[in-house]
Amino acid sequence: MGELVMNFADKLAEAVQRCGNPVLVGLDPRWDQLPQSLRRETGGDFWLQRAIAYRKFCCAVIDVVAPLVPAVKPQAAFFEQLGPFGLANLACVIVHAHERDLLVILDGKRNDIGSTATAYAEGYLGDHDQSAWGADALTVSPYLGDDSLRPFVEVCTRRETGMYVLVKTSNPGGTTFQDLLCDGRPLYRHVADHVEKLACETAGECGYGAVGAVVGATYPEQLAELRAAMPHSWFLVPGYGAQGGSAADVAAAFDANGLGAVVNSSRGIIFAHARKEYAHFGENRWQEAVDAATREMIEQLRAVARRR
Amino acid sequence: MGELVMNFADKLAEAVQRCGNPVLVGLDPRWDQLPQSLRRETGGDFWLQRAIAYRKFCCAVIDVVAPLVPAVKPQAAFFEQLGPFGLANLACVIVHAHERDLLVILDGKRNDIGSTATAYAEGYLGDHDQSAWGADALTVSPYLGDDSLRPFVEVCTRRETGMYVLVKTSNPGGTTFQDLLCDGRPLYRHVADHVEKLACETAGECGYGAVGAVVGATYPEQLAELRAAMPHSWFLVPGYGAQGGSAADVAAAFDANGLGAVVNSSRGIIFAHARKEYAHFGENRWQEAVDAATREMIEQLRAVARRR
Repeated sequence: MGELVMNFADKLAEAVQRCGNPVLVGLDPRWDQLPQSLRRETGGDFWLQRAIAYRKFCCAVIDVVAPLVPAVKPQAAFFEQLGPFGLANLACVIVHAHERDLLVILDGKRNDIGSTATAYAEGYLGDHDQSAWGADALTVSPYLGDDSLRPFVEVCTRRETGMYVLVKTSNPGGTTFQDLLCDGRPLYRHVADHVEKLACETAGECGYGAVGAVVGATYPEQLAELRAAMPHSWFLVPGYGAQGGSAADVAAAFDANGLGAVVNSSRGIIFAHARKEYAHFGENRWQEAVDAATREMIEQLRAVARRR
Repeated sequence: MGELVMNFADKLAEAVQRCGNPVLVGLDPRWDQLPQSLRRETGGDFWLQRAIAYRKFCCAVIDVVAPLVPAVKPQAAFFEQLGPFGLANLACVIVHAHERDLLVILDGKRNDIGSTATAYAEGYLGDHDQSAWGADALTVSPYLGDDSLRPFVEVCTRRETGMYVLVKTSNPGGTTFQDLLCDGRPLYRHVADHVEKLACETAGECGYGAVGAVVGATYPEQLAELRAAMPHSWFLVPGYGAQGGSAADVAAAFDANGLGAVVNSSRGIIFAHARKEYAHFGENRWQEAVDAATREMIEQLRAVARRR
């Protein structure tokens, strides 16, 4: 490259190519689903106890998946639910992922206006010496409009980090507003056009921008439509596995080189020990179930990538 | 009432009537604007130092405004910018506001789907013994649709707390998507209809629901239009003062009894010592400037309320 500054999409493309897969492991700790060994009531502060268990669990997942995948996606909500202790332990999880050379896409769906948006962007995005959280990318909500997205774009450019704007989400209710017809086209297409413009402005050597889009695996037709309409936008694709999306459903998210999308699975991987296919590991060998489920997803995605 | 369960809108109406004004003081601490006495570099951890200053500043604001107004609105972003230390101090600010009998509307603009939305709702909303944060209400973003709002509504009903959904925001870029015409009406009207439906479902004795709407002071025509279209939705009105909205602009937000809206001012109150009108207090007497600016806003809003 010859340049010190590296675009986030280039970093991500490099990581995907190094690993040979686009799997994004979602770190969504839920108390009731944690392996029993981590759920022992140890006494002491209720929130702290759970927060420590979440950290131990997520770090143990990271240890299994770090040699296999390019990135993890911690879900901020589950840590926030535990208050300040939860967030202190989220910070540790992000540091641990970086120590294991994983990219960290924090799922916070943040947004606000003007200098408040700048506070979110500068707080969450950047190296650990610039930003209190040190995430490599953040999910962002678009409802507040252009001047709410700009501060994130500015920080992403300045700090070589990324952002994924909600465009077409994986949940059934995503249709409520996203599918409303505005001037003959659904709202999500208007948001998509806006994101694509920002992606063009921030494009790296790989052709993709630091600004990307969240597009659910559960709407495969729209995924293909948006891939065609957003050639510079890297997609973060939720909804795979537990939410119903299959490898065939997400195939259209990738370009001819197998780039342009990361596909997230959370429950299907981190709680694999609870899936029928992996029940034979038993709860004590839950990390082996995580390993097996991750490898299975990698193979499934490679199979559809090869067919393209 | 004869019932133990109390609707959040009823609690808020009671507080507004007790104080005789609908002023919502926004707690948006910004390092560069803090009074010099709080900005001394004391050494030690960079983030911790600032987080402690934010807490001291916000608690000192609370001490001034608690006898005057019904509620405060901490802006989560500024605390999150400081990492876990920031959030630990935000938790202290919320506790302090409750000790001073203020209602706390946390401005986090959160949203997600299904059980993740439940995690946000249960984490932020409720008494301090139920919820790690203990806020009375939370701002929520609507882009993810119906099934992303439902978990918040459910928690608001169960825990006597409130939520304010972004409908028509105060920023210039709010028009980007909110004003797109969908089936002949702007998007924000569709969101408004949805919010009004949820407000009806959760209405208390005062006639307003636990679900309310964020409607900016900077679009007075739309404020009047939405007041008529959303008779059960309590409004949280940002954009007053520093952002350009005047008392006349927000007059239409209120019903004939002076209820139905709280009007937020952040910078104009908390950094009043930096305003020309209050410069005579000097930085050392910044709390007196906060007191004077709060009383001025109360008088301005009372004047328009009397004219209705």
